[in-house]
Amino acid sequence: MAAMFGDPPMSLPAPSARSRVRRLPDRGRYDRDTIAAILDEGLVAHVAAAGAGEAVVVPMAYGREGDRLYLHGSPASRTLRALAQGAPACATVTLLDGLVLARSAFHSSMNYRSVVVLGRAERLEGDAKLAGLRAVTEHLAPGRWDELRPPTAKELGATAVVAMDLREAAAKVRTGPPHDEPRDLAHPVWAGVVPLRGAVGAPQADSAVPPGTAPSPSVTGWSRPGWERLG
Amino acid sequence: MAAMFGDPPMSLPAPSARSRVRRLPDRGRYDRDTIAAILDEGLVAHVAAAGAGEAVVVPMAYGREGDRLYLHGSPASRTLRALAQGAPACATVTLLDGLVLARSAFHSSMNYRSVVVLGRAERLEGDAKLAGLRAVTEHLAPGRWDELRPPTAKELGATAVVAMDLREAAAKVRTGPPHDEPRDLAHPVWAGVVPLRGAVGAPQADSAVPPGTAPSPSVTGWSRPGWERLG
Repeated sequence: MAAMFGDPPMSLPAPSARSRVRRLPDRGRYDRDTIAAILDEGLVAHVAAAGAGEAVVVPMAYGREGDRLYLHGSPASRTLRALAQGAPACATVTLLDGLVLARSAFHSSMNYRSVVVLGRAERLEGDAKLAGLRAVTEHLAPGRWDELRPPTAKELGATAVVAMDLREAAAKVRTGPPHDEPRDLAHPVWAGVVPLRGAVGAPQADSAVPPGTAPSPSVTGWSRPGWERLG
Repeated sequence: MAAMFGDPPMSLPAPSARSRVRRLPDRGRYDRDTIAAILDEGLVAHVAAAGAGEAVVVPMAYGREGDRLYLHGSPASRTLRALAQGAPACATVTLLDGLVLARSAFHSSMNYRSVVVLGRAERLEGDAKLAGLRAVTEHLAPGRWDELRPPTAKELGATAVVAMDLREAAAKVRTGPPHDEPRDLAHPVWAGVVPLRGAVGAPQADSAVPPGTAPSPSVTGWSRPGWERLG
């Protein structure tokens, strides 16, 4: 229970005061490959921007390229506006890998991999904005961007794109079985891990797709590491 | 793209100024059953508490009972401390149902169900605290609480439990196929939805479970609506 998630992961170059994983520090990971792999597997970031004594956490699509995390949305969105204005922000991506069912509630937990990105976002314009949109679209479905018609000027105007640096990002990872108290091991209940993962169903064409049209490569090739393909 | 998630869902009794879904308001849902069903299916809330000009979003286990959302963690966790002190807070739960692959990047999206809970948390003590812990444990795996030994005084002391009221909660839901521009329908690319869901693998006993021990009912019976059972 107390151990289920704890405080946030933080930092990449050198765990600074605010960026070190404080709760359960042995779960902290700061290497770029771990952070990139978690971000690349996820689909939704939960984002907040500091402001006006309120806290609001919004789910957002995102993309990663190199050391940058891209977010996009309507310029009228309050969170996007705060991001674009450079408010202190946080984007968190969490992948759930399993239920950790210990012999006590206290040691019950989840296996997970999460990344917390801290920092101030930068609003993108021009080519950088287009590159950010490409990154978000390609993150959703790799290869899709080139299958689509290019965005129009009107669409670009109706979309705000920001980038966050991954310098102040850190991962937190829990794996493996429960860590029960030795005295609890004789408690007569099954204990262990129930693995959880993502699953992908059969693509469902919309009504304007001519019958017999094969899904495009971005659809047939869609996968995430460890995800199950159904149907 | 601009449509992918937009601004947060909000409110239950009557959409107040801050609690109405502003972006894509037709996706807003305020009825208790929709909100409860989403919270009951999810496993992780992304939580932020306003404070000190920073934004930090932390993944947390949670539980729901009636009109209350329960969160718990170490009393040393910064987020939990801020929650316990009654800072303005937000807990967001998002379920991902599919990739919405339109013919333009602009109308590409995701199908999802999310709940945003806004408000100030209340720190629980005594019986209320125990009930909150029970709710969190039962949310993780229904039936588990009674299979476990009761928490010790030391464990209770090492755990903080807070409750948020669901009065200022609202859901946001996207379902169905892409909404392409009529002029794009002739663009020669497959378009539609790729369904996504959760999947549950075969339980993995830890090394202290005697060989041949059957998993307990909270394990064999574990399911979430729409999730796939593997192996």
